[in-house]
Amino acid sequence: MRTGVCYFPEHWPRERWETDVEQMAEAGLEYVRMAEFSWAVLEPERGEFDVEWLDEAIELIGDHGMQAVLCTPTATPPKWLVDERPEIRQEEPDGTVREHGSRRHYCFNSAAYREETERIVTKLTERYADNPHVAGWQTDNEFGCHRTVRCYCDDCAAAFREWLAEKYGSIEALNEAWGNTFWSQRYTSFEEVDPPGPTPAEHHPSRLLDYARFSSDSVVDYNRLQVDLLNEANPDWFVTHNFMGRFPTLDAYAVSEDLDLVSWDSYPTGFVQDRLEGEPTSDQLRAGDPDQLGIDHDLYRAALDRPFWVMEQQPGDVNWPPHCPQPGEGAMRLWAHHATAHGADAVLYFRWRRCLEGQEQYHAGLRKQDGSPDRGYHDASQAGAELAAIEDADHVDAPVALLFDYDNLWALDEQPHAPDFDYWSLLDAFYGALRARGVQVDVVHPKTDLAGYDAVVAPALHLVTDGLANRLTDYVETGGELLFGPRTGVKDEYNKLRPAPQPGPLADLVGASVDQHESVPAHLETRVRRADGDETYGFRTWAEWLEADAATPLLEYDTGGVEAGRTAVVENDVREGTVVYCGVWPDADLADALVRPLLERADVPYCDRLPEGLRVGERGDYTWVTNFSSDRFGLDPDADVEWLLGDAAVGAYDVAIADGRIVDGLSVERLE
Amino acid sequence: MRTGVCYFPEHWPRERWETDVEQMAEAGLEYVRMAEFSWAVLEPERGEFDVEWLDEAIELIGDHGMQAVLCTPTATPPKWLVDERPEIRQEEPDGTVREHGSRRHYCFNSAAYREETERIVTKLTERYADNPHVAGWQTDNEFGCHRTVRCYCDDCAAAFREWLAEKYGSIEALNEAWGNTFWSQRYTSFEEVDPPGPTPAEHHPSRLLDYARFSSDSVVDYNRLQVDLLNEANPDWFVTHNFMGRFPTLDAYAVSEDLDLVSWDSYPTGFVQDRLEGEPTSDQLRAGDPDQLGIDHDLYRAALDRPFWVMEQQPGDVNWPPHCPQPGEGAMRLWAHHATAHGADAVLYFRWRRCLEGQEQYHAGLRKQDGSPDRGYHDASQAGAELAAIEDADHVDAPVALLFDYDNLWALDEQPHAPDFDYWSLLDAFYGALRARGVQVDVVHPKTDLAGYDAVVAPALHLVTDGLANRLTDYVETGGELLFGPRTGVKDEYNKLRPAPQPGPLADLVGASVDQHESVPAHLETRVRRADGDETYGFRTWAEWLEADAATPLLEYDTGGVEAGRTAVVENDVREGTVVYCGVWPDADLADALVRPLLERADVPYCDRLPEGLRVGERGDYTWVTNFSSDRFGLDPDADVEWLLGDAAVGAYDVAIADGRIVDGLSVERLE
Amino acid sequence: MRTGVCYFPEHWPRERWETDVEQMAEAGLEYVRMAEFSWAVLEPERGEFDVEWLDEAIELIGDHGMQAVLCTPTATPPKWLVDERPEIRQEEPDGTVREHGSRRHYCFNSAAYREETERIVTKLTERYADNPHVAGWQTDNEFGCHRTVRCYCDDCAAAFREWLAEKYGSIEALNEAWGNTFWSQRYTSFEEVDPPGPTPAEHHPSRLLDYARFSSDSVVDYNRLQVDLLNEANPDWFVTHNFMGRFPTLDAYAVSEDLDLVSWDSYPTGFVQDRLEGEPTSDQLRAGDPDQLGIDHDLYRAALDRPFWVMEQQPGDVNWPPHCPQPGEGAMRLWAHHATAHGADAVLYFRWRRCLEGQEQYHAGLRKQDGSPDRGYHDASQAGAELAAIEDADHVDAPVALLFDYDNLWALDEQPHAPDFDYWSLLDAFYGALRARGVQVDVVHPKTDLAGYDAVVAPALHLVTDGLANRLTDYVETGGELLFGPRTGVKDEYNKLRPAPQPGPLADLVGASVDQHESVPAHLETRVRRADGDETYGFRTWAEWLEADAATPLLEYDTGGVEAGRTAVVENDVREGTVVYCGVWPDADLADALVRPLLERADVPYCDRLPEGLRVGERGDYTWVTNFSSDRFGLDPDADVEWLLGDAAVGAYDVAIADGRIVDGLSVERLE
Ligand SMILES: [Mg+2]
Ligand SMILES: [Mg+2]
Ligand SMILES: [Mg+2]
Ligand SMILES: [Zn+2]
Ligand SMILES: [Zn+2]
Ligand SMILES: [Zn+2]
Repeated sequence: MRTGVCYFPEHWPRERWETDVEQMAEAGLEYVRMAEFSWAVLEPERGEFDVEWLDEAIELIGDHGMQAVLCTPTATPPKWLVDERPEIRQEEPDGTVREHGSRRHYCFNSAAYREETERIVTKLTERYADNPHVAGWQTDNEFGCHRTVRCYCDDCAAAFREWLAEKYGSIEALNEAWGNTFWSQRYTSFEEVDPPGPTPAEHHPSRLLDYARFSSDSVVDYNRLQVDLLNEANPDWFVTHNFMGRFPTLDAYAVSEDLDLVSWDSYPTGFVQDRLEGEPTSDQLRAGDPDQLGIDHDLYRAALDRPFWVMEQQPGDVNWPPHCPQPGEGAMRLWAHHATAHGADAVLYFRWRRCLEGQEQYHAGLRKQDGSPDRGYHDASQAGAELAAIEDADHVDAPVALLFDYDNLWALDEQPHAPDFDYWSLLDAFYGALRARGVQVDVVHPKTDLAGYDAVVAPALHLVTDGLANRLTDYVETGGELLFGPRTGVKDEYNKLRPAPQPGPLADLVGASVDQHESVPAHLETRVRRADGDETYGFRTWAEWLEADAATPLLEYDTGGVEAGRTAVVENDVREGTVVYCGVWPDADLADALVRPLLERADVPYCDRLPEGLRVGERGDYTWVTNFSSDRFGLDPDADVEWLLGDAAVGAYDVAIADGRIVDGLSVERLE
Repeated sequence: MRTGVCYFPEHWPRERWETDVEQMAEAGLEYVRMAEFSWAVLEPERGEFDVEWLDEAIELIGDHGMQAVLCTPTATPPKWLVDERPEIRQEEPDGTVREHGSRRHYCFNSAAYREETERIVTKLTERYADNPHVAGWQTDNEFGCHRTVRCYCDDCAAAFREWLAEKYGSIEALNEAWGNTFWSQRYTSFEEVDPPGPTPAEHHPSRLLDYARFSSDSVVDYNRLQVDLLNEANPDWFVTHNFMGRFPTLDAYAVSEDLDLVSWDSYPTGFVQDRLEGEPTSDQLRAGDPDQLGIDHDLYRAALDRPFWVMEQQPGDVNWPPHCPQPGEGAMRLWAHHATAHGADAVLYFRWRRCLEGQEQYHAGLRKQDGSPDRGYHDASQAGAELAAIEDADHVDAPVALLFDYDNLWALDEQPHAPDFDYWSLLDAFYGALRARGVQVDVVHPKTDLAGYDAVVAPALHLVTDGLANRLTDYVETGGELLFGPRTGVKDEYNKLRPAPQPGPLADLVGASVDQHESVPAHLETRVRRADGDETYGFRTWAEWLEADAATPLLEYDTGGVEAGRTAVVENDVREGTVVYCGVWPDADLADALVRPLLERADVPYCDRLPEGLRVGERGDYTWVTNFSSDRFGLDPDADVEWLLGDAAVGAYDVAIADGRIVDGLSVERLE
Repeated sequence: MRTGVCYFPEHWPRERWETDVEQMAEAGLEYVRMAEFSWAVLEPERGEFDVEWLDEAIELIGDHGMQAVLCTPTATPPKWLVDERPEIRQEEPDGTVREHGSRRHYCFNSAAYREETERIVTKLTERYADNPHVAGWQTDNEFGCHRTVRCYCDDCAAAFREWLAEKYGSIEALNEAWGNTFWSQRYTSFEEVDPPGPTPAEHHPSRLLDYARFSSDSVVDYNRLQVDLLNEANPDWFVTHNFMGRFPTLDAYAVSEDLDLVSWDSYPTGFVQDRLEGEPTSDQLRAGDPDQLGIDHDLYRAALDRPFWVMEQQPGDVNWPPHCPQPGEGAMRLWAHHATAHGADAVLYFRWRRCLEGQEQYHAGLRKQDGSPDRGYHDASQAGAELAAIEDADHVDAPVALLFDYDNLWALDEQPHAPDFDYWSLLDAFYGALRARGVQVDVVHPKTDLAGYDAVVAPALHLVTDGLANRLTDYVETGGELLFGPRTGVKDEYNKLRPAPQPGPLADLVGASVDQHESVPAHLETRVRRADGDETYGFRTWAEWLEADAATPLLEYDTGGVEAGRTAVVENDVREGTVVYCGVWPDADLADALVRPLLERADVPYCDRLPEGLRVGERGDYTWVTNFSSDRFGLDPDADVEWLLGDAAVGAYDVAIADGRIVDGLSVERLE
């Protein structure tokens, strides 16, 4: 339950530092992140190091009772280094080289850059291994930002071939696994396999999926190089990396396996503009979307099943979204509480002071450019004090797992089969329904042990191995409650269709199979009706026509068209548990109509359907109520509640904390 | 009146083939297309051939009373070949090389690739010249698909220079023909002329037009290389190529001159999404647009004035349009009948079975991925039986010609002069009016002998030589009925303006000339009014202000603006015939108001205006009624009709066949 | 008050010239511009010159009492030259070379091209230095058209480094000035600084701004090379360059310093489609927008504070906008009067006759392709006669200055901070309010001496030096009336934030500072209300929250959101003058509510708010009334008026000229 900030002392005169650090301490900040992007300051010319400034800054921070979190500066190799070793630069598929002048202009597979990385990281670890004020390290910064996970240079081509040879053993095995008979794509040796460059038509989906995996693995390897150096120097400091929001090309689960702590960078009012479907509402522009943030909190928490950090928390207006409205009053405080409710143990604001130079001059800090307090400083101070007053909460214990993984993301991104099919958005549909019922969710990889979960939701579990099918079957047979979304069980792990009808190896479990699938534009009729009643619900984008075998039809298509009367959703009782397969992309009402009985069956406590923007989170013995809207809401819990912060009337962008769990039976009304 | 299918035995275990082929025969299929894209299977390494599998497949097909249609596998050179001879690859204008990994990654002008082509084709012709089960060959596949007609490599540059030297003889003649004084574009030798690469501003239109012609001619040459080898090996089998729908860069008339049979690939619900103006309707998403298909049927039929084939017929949902809705009930059967009505002698569905691997896993077949029958199998079987029951119908004998050619398409594509000016769409306006009156249309090149046509419609006959002007004048003077659309007679054959006012050499024939032209956005007023009455009609995009000389004004502009009162359409009696010049892009009502009197004057039988989606086609002594809509229609013919299939009430996506011609005087009403 | 035309004799047979030139003279044209783009005709092969045709054409023009304006042909180096010296070609940031085939395919920093330029210009100056019929020269044509100001070739890289070394002296100074600590962007030598190529993320704004300045300076240098040669050959002929409308990458003020005469190319119905926000109205499509044209007239007039020319005036329909409607009746005449009212001394139509060849066949001339008069010929003749009848009017003497400069344009274009933030459009908001009150405006660089202006308006004076701040303070203190728009005083001259709050060095003058800024999409509430009343006004895109110190709040935010009640506009009395700071992008009503009191305080005469499309311009002792709309308006001046042309009822696209100044107190009503 701590707060912190990112600080760039190298941007400010030495004589200002004391003032800055004092003001940090006054705000109750406990962690100060530094040295990010500072390579050219640390090593202005090859072999000439200047680290005294960092020594001093760390000392000052320690003197004020705070701790330093250091970053390896590898996201920004200086120009002298790039000019000496130009082969470190990334290449686009068409051979265009990504040059110096911004950041992340290096290739993860460059042997030269790995050498340079080892050199600078070693220099820093040697310097600070024994420094008592250094709590831990962040490797690099936001791996993959600016579309840099996938590179197409010669180093990558060679590494890809090695990766493939390692994976498949023989070229015949690769040809077979990918299915290269199609369009004469068979190879005679691994040497023939290139990164996917410019082609007249689309690429082979199996080749693309392996290039996505290889590229992500390259980052995992590169990160591990740094982690090993850091761990070797001092096994006690923590090592983390700051991931990004809704980030598509890097497997955060895989990177996390080498980390002690997972952290991520949260920019709520930017994310609603550049990575959420649809036009953001006024409230979203002012405070972000709690479920969009929540799904990432829950993913990064689940990655190590351990409290996470928000390594960069939006401090006010930022520079990169299309529009940059001022956050609503109190939003910067709200976000810290919301993250904590989802399991964060620390929230560090980015950055201390608006920078006078470079690409981020239009990015606010906790302090304005003149050093005076900005809106975020007040919010951060208040949040810090309030969070410090809460006794340490336990790790979030979520009763429901949402299955998510990057292989499925990559496979579906390659073949969305509809311009409006987006895997994240489909996840949102199910996640949002759970969160609107006050339920805590772990966003986990399908390989996770599911035994501890009362219910599991798996939207678009596109690639399914026999092993996974068996594990899910076991889960249900031993009493698990499972809900599948559309596009589940379509392919094998190589992104090839199975000969068996969808959902392939899950067909027995589901008790039904898919007769047809289709993607549909918004102006076609898209309604389903209860098989045993009159209620209808909307869907969008995707429709599967199910043929029930053992299963019972729950919903059928209710249109004038070719799908009329066919089955859209089925339910199947399997020994101790139940599985529901939903063949459409549900709207919010339909998602709720699927989720609520799931929770009932799983005996998971839930509340009345919450209004948009209001979310409730239980962590340990506390319940956080966070209001991301400009409306005021009144809470009506089932039992008496002691409010540790706020009360049952929660204003715009405000927070309340109850002592105890209050979700079960809670209802909420909008106040005038 | 036959059906068939495309089959890829190489994707399936040998032990499955017998089952597959039996099921084909059961469905009444008579042709099986094979070997497309199979180079890497036929020749896994240079010089090591494996063709026994194909021998066996052909044998099996023959054993079941069907015939094989083979494809040369040149659309997909294997990776070993590309790596050995990388110069075969195409280049983008900016030098980006199109790499292996999809298909069509070779340059038509590559000497190396022509060698390789000769080698593989010869290998196959030697093998199958005497095989009694091989009915004919398809060269390559869909020449030009994925924007591959135009390449910008060094081979193409050299070939372009030769092509120009051959055409113009001297560089002075080229400078004069193109008009290269403009912007100092004169050349001193053919060596100076490059393919049109990246330039600050737009290219010279005459240079672009010749590059378009040269590129198309390169494909003609390449195709002829294959045709010659095939004909030489066995003069009795037919040679065809499968063209595409509404395809812009290849002159299908020119390629066809070397073929025995013209065929094309028809994907109705995809085409309405990716190559038709406007948002498709629900009916179009379910069954396609009959006139969009019809114009291509009529073009490919007219190319050799001979029955054509649909070489690939959409079998169900497909993978490449934006959205992939399921076709309406019976649509796959409807399409076969519709093609037959337009003159097809065979319809082959693509493909037999959904493929488990590669780029087209989301493309349906007649059989599902598990081998069981898919929706298309039932439709294809029914269509096959119904068509087999019809005695062979004669070749379609169309009374009206629509003039279309690629030079005009290319010239107008380069200089549309309005974002919404699309030559195909303008053709649609006139073609749709004719088809809504039940009239059969030949879509022919302007060089065609028009003597046999009762009426001719020529929208945007942009480039006009004196010879063409003389032939059209003769046509009218000897009793022909001629309707011109806008943008006619603007340029000479080199894409240069003539000094004479538009319509240039046609001005005497038309009896009027164009004072001004303009392109207008949708929000300006665009109405015309009868010169001799009150009826008004809408137009769009293009307006010419006519000055009538011998001609009579028919319609004038009816707006508050600068064009008010000026003449938009004129009619001119010329000896035995009449010519009408329409200076605007007509809406459907105006097009009908021009077409109906044209048919009257030409004494062409026609019916009441048909509802959208319902189309009637006469072929020989039969009349097909095809309903591409979800409505039900009742037909009221002038005389008694014997229905060979269905009856006078035609349901959604259904078909009726009358014994005899029923268009003259037919009326139709929508049934509840 | 003269008219002229652009003529390309080289496109027409010699025997036609006499007819053409006679018809020019009949139309009252006095200037004939020639030789543009004619390099390949003048020098068909290296060293072989053919200039006799030009001699003859000049002679013919002189014989008919007209004067020639010649153009250096450097915009179109011939292919033989490009092939001989390929290094002259421009490069895109990714290395793509811009090839021959259109125009402007040379690099301004190419030493080779400077040599060639010197050679051809010298050849021409030697030939015509003593020719009595050559009035002057235009250098090249439309520098920078087709995005050619900024090149990324090796020559440019070298020149950029020199330019930087010259500007900064040491690399340490550059690092400091730009602020290169950010993201490790420090350089160790000038050799390390490249043109801004492809990078993963956005570039450093200070580097971008200097590349924009360097690129513009390169054009200034290149132009000066030509100017010096021309001046040296004959100091008496004038030297001009034809600038473009609303052109973003070239500093026209800087280029103009080397010229005798500023001219520009005006295409009203094209500009409203491709460089004005929003969908153009029907009237704008027919006649253009008078304020869009006016702001450029006023900029190019102010550049040398001297009458300017319209070197190319749209003659009818043109080829390059999205749509090409015919101009309204009389529009070509209207434009000549409107330009004259804004201070033009000559208007030359482009071109004489529609060209039969090349890229501009769809561009009208004063004569049609057959040589007969086109619509523009009649308009031009009438305008010529009417303007000749007006005694020479004085230079426009504008009481109000609008501050504009390219550094601000470039800085804001790099960091618009909202997709809909466009510096020109913000200028339009203030300029339009002034022009709707009948006020003449000089569009001047901030370094201009402002002493002569009664009022100054400065929207988005983004970069402010201390010197400028002092000059503006002096201006107000000595009685000037000053109105600032939003985003003023944000940065220093290096595009770096100042540590002091916005408006930085202007804070004392303004008596207020900016607490927060934000950019907002259209669907957020955007209203302000008078601090002392109930009137509300709209704004868009940008909002600053002001904290008044000495100043008085005038307007405050009137929304339900976070900005409610905060100050949006302040007024500050400073000794003899007043300054108003407007922190929002005003809508038209708000702009008028700010401008009208400004004019009152400054004692500048103004009229009732004019309807859109109707504009009034005072020049010397005349007042032009120009109606760019299809409505008819009745003018009601305060006193009796003698109409030199037209009268108080001004029809669609018509003009009236009053003898005397009539703006003060004028009112206008729409007539039925
Ligand atoms: Mg748990
Ligand atoms: Mg015929
Ligand atoms: Mg003045
Ligand atoms: Zn790489
Ligand atoms: Zn080529
Ligand atoms: Zn250059």
